[in-house]
Amino acid sequence: MALVSIELDRQATAPLFQQIYEGLREAILTGQLEGGTRLPPTRELAQELHVSRNTIVNAFEQLIAEGYLEGKVGAGTYVTHVLPEDLLHIRNASHITSSYRSAHRPSISRRGALITERAIAPIHYADTPRAFQPGLPAVDRFPFEIWSKLSARYWRNPPLSLLRYGDPQGYRPLREAIVSYLKAARGVRCEAEQVIIISGSQQALDLTARILLDPGDTIYFEDPGYLGARHVFTNAGAGLIPVSVDHDGMNVDAAIAQARVQRQQAQLIYVTPSHQYPMGVTLSMQRRFKLLEWAAQTGMWILEDDYDSEFRYEGRPLQALQGLDTGGRVIYMGSFSKALLPSLRLGYLVVPPSLVETFVKARALADRHSPSIEQAILAAFINEGHFTRHLRRMRQLYHERQMTLIDAAHMHLAGLLDIEPSETGMHVVGWLGRGIDDHLAAQQALLHNVDAPPLSAYCLNSPSQHGLVLGYTGIDSDAIHAGTRRLTQALESVEQAARLAR
Amino acid sequence: MALVSIELDRQATAPLFQQIYEGLREAILTGQLEGGTRLPPTRELAQELHVSRNTIVNAFEQLIAEGYLEGKVGAGTYVTHVLPEDLLHIRNASHITSSYRSAHRPSISRRGALITERAIAPIHYADTPRAFQPGLPAVDRFPFEIWSKLSARYWRNPPLSLLRYGDPQGYRPLREAIVSYLKAARGVRCEAEQVIIISGSQQALDLTARILLDPGDTIYFEDPGYLGARHVFTNAGAGLIPVSVDHDGMNVDAAIAQARVQRQQAQLIYVTPSHQYPMGVTLSMQRRFKLLEWAAQTGMWILEDDYDSEFRYEGRPLQALQGLDTGGRVIYMGSFSKALLPSLRLGYLVVPPSLVETFVKARALADRHSPSIEQAILAAFINEGHFTRHLRRMRQLYHERQMTLIDAAHMHLAGLLDIEPSETGMHVVGWLGRGIDDHLAAQQALLHNVDAPPLSAYCLNSPSQHGLVLGYTGIDSDAIHAGTRRLTQALESVEQAARLAR
Repeated sequence: MALVSIELDRQATAPLFQQIYEGLREAILTGQLEGGTRLPPTRELAQELHVSRNTIVNAFEQLIAEGYLEGKVGAGTYVTHVLPEDLLHIRNASHITSSYRSAHRPSISRRGALITERAIAPIHYADTPRAFQPGLPAVDRFPFEIWSKLSARYWRNPPLSLLRYGDPQGYRPLREAIVSYLKAARGVRCEAEQVIIISGSQQALDLTARILLDPGDTIYFEDPGYLGARHVFTNAGAGLIPVSVDHDGMNVDAAIAQARVQRQQAQLIYVTPSHQYPMGVTLSMQRRFKLLEWAAQTGMWILEDDYDSEFRYEGRPLQALQGLDTGGRVIYMGSFSKALLPSLRLGYLVVPPSLVETFVKARALADRHSPSIEQAILAAFINEGHFTRHLRRMRQLYHERQMTLIDAAHMHLAGLLDIEPSETGMHVVGWLGRGIDDHLAAQQALLHNVDAPPLSAYCLNSPSQHGLVLGYTGIDSDAIHAGTRRLTQALESVEQAARLAR
Repeated sequence: MALVSIELDRQATAPLFQQIYEGLREAILTGQLEGGTRLPPTRELAQELHVSRNTIVNAFEQLIAEGYLEGKVGAGTYVTHVLPEDLLHIRNASHITSSYRSAHRPSISRRGALITERAIAPIHYADTPRAFQPGLPAVDRFPFEIWSKLSARYWRNPPLSLLRYGDPQGYRPLREAIVSYLKAARGVRCEAEQVIIISGSQQALDLTARILLDPGDTIYFEDPGYLGARHVFTNAGAGLIPVSVDHDGMNVDAAIAQARVQRQQAQLIYVTPSHQYPMGVTLSMQRRFKLLEWAAQTGMWILEDDYDSEFRYEGRPLQALQGLDTGGRVIYMGSFSKALLPSLRLGYLVVPPSLVETFVKARALADRHSPSIEQAILAAFINEGHFTRHLRRMRQLYHERQMTLIDAAHMHLAGLLDIEPSETGMHVVGWLGRGIDDHLAAQQALLHNVDAPPLSAYCLNSPSQHGLVLGYTGIDSDAIHAGTRRLTQALESVEQAARLAR
């Protein structure tokens, strides 16, 4: 009778029938109960285990449903014969399982292997923001009360259309709100039909790469340039042609000259005209026209990444490249990650009419669409004026924070790091003294709990001068001062080591 | 003096300085104001246009900043020479622009072209749900009040960690809540380290295709099978090998036999074991073990799409394939689109430990992560018992709705459409009479405002019998009755046409 010993734990949260089911299944899978074995009648088993007959019946029914047992409860129940013997052996002998594992290493695609090899741009998940991690807005200043009220408004009584599958192009009122904002603030010329709501800059890059790049295609890329973009393009199998950056932004003439000499035509040019990442310079008007002309002549696409131009501290912001484009060559991308919160995961693309259908289909294929109610909340947030009000406040706050950093740097870092003010954006570049390696400096900074990525990490060719990228928008003035002091200590020790090495 | 005529509209919302800026820019770009032209002093222009001098200064400064004008306000301002003449011509002559457009048709990638050509699974955005659109939950029964309260709780005072960039693998408490749910309800064996939060089934398919499939790879695919998956895999350049489906689900033996004969080894097998899409059958236990054994022997991956198994109306649900897998070959995907709301855009993957790193990196590269606060709200919703309570209610409701449909079909559709009840899920299949083409039937149904996709649309090979797929979960019993009557009319006219044609 005692074919199997099942130990029941009456204190456990798992119901008794489940414990019996699992005990029997384990016995079958390990071969303790062989195929064809007749199980004792439910009544007997119930008595033996001190449970109700129903409990046994439930367990048996589950095992029958799953194919471990055959027959009808009450008319004889047998362990099934159909379990493949091989599989039973695999289960029995864990050494076989592990040899199976080593014999069949996961075979993934070439692209999968590329993704695994290459680290993507590191992002830290520390609970408190660290000086001087770039690109982090002052998330604690977000108008939570307002957002919470809008959220309640939509969640309490949402229109049904916001609950089912939505338009992959995005919620139309949000697209319209973005058009109004972009026209007024960025000089972008577009209709809501050209706007596609996406989950942020990363998806903009990913969709663009899928739609425009085949493996082996080439793209012009700012050097130094944004790592998030570089990873997407290289993972798409594209070849990056570095284009140097000077005080007027990407050197368009150099790219054109190179194209003539090498007789190669790139498919795409990636550019950050408003605030070059990471150098912080602005693409000159002359170069903007040159670039547009070149693209119109060659049929090349321009991807304009306008990631943080909302924060212009002096003068009026330059109109977006997209607004000057008459040839329909510019794909414009923006994000709410910097302007509002990174964790919202909302951004937008403005694409030439000829590309709208393909982009929308690619978005639908990738992940259908962005969450609908959050799109409606954001549309209301923009339309009721909260967005521009928040931007205005943050612009002032970030300007103050930049000045705090510049002042603190003058006080502590003179001779170690030469920081130029920037009229735009969320970070500045600090130049290291001659002979100081920025990777070493950044490593030493990290040891002092300071996050200051080395400029050469963003470079395709060797940089002419080494520097550090410093974000200042996500931390208050105390943290800026404390961070500056820690960075000073770090750079002093790097200087000292360099002196000793000479 | 009157170099340019600028007409100011004092009723317009655009500020006067902007109107002047735009008027002057237009004049420069069209060549009305040539390079080198000296502009009148701001004071004179202000008098002429009846605006304050500041207004003119603002407009000039903007034009200087953007490179249209040179010089200093007050010391002589000139139209810049650097605007490329070619571009001016393009702007002048719109016929050149359009010839440019036709000469350089948008050149997109091969994958982009594929995406454009192939329509993805059609989704309707009608304001009222239409009978019998498959896969739509009863979104009006969602517990909005509860979600709204949880939403307010998190948005009013969120932890900072939910506002910055988040973990691409997903919010850990949500991953843990999903593990508890999957263990108890689906017999999935996993740790939170294997769970990846994604934006839904579509992203699960997309990430899997990227990571596991190179162009030219083959995958076994259920025939008939889910169109959303088919589009993703074909767009990834994979070749689909159809595997027929019978009453025990995908015919695994047939696939194995075919593999032996053709000496080909697929990289992946896509399967819907709990509730085959669209046939509605369950993969037998015997075939589950066969499939797992085959995958373990050949190193093939299994993608288990468990899209609507939450809704099991009779018997206990079968344990997921993943829970039986000892070889680490199963990638399990689930979604909250059916269980809660499609517009939430949240789902999950459970992947073998050997693939976790690659999947997380691929997600980060595609679009970083899912919105953080929504993940926290969902975690609380699950942990506080609202999720299983909602599922229980919907299970009962959907069961009632299926019975309503079956009864209505017996009453009206007898002889026209033979609907079998289904123990699981959100749709049933109705079989058409001999000689009735399901594409024609579905077209006629649409003319009667009934959405009933033809079974052959899901088929790779020609189907042996034609049928319609009918969803019933998103509409109430009145709509089910009305829809059934309209479908009856549609099928009667199809029958009549078929009789006349014979």
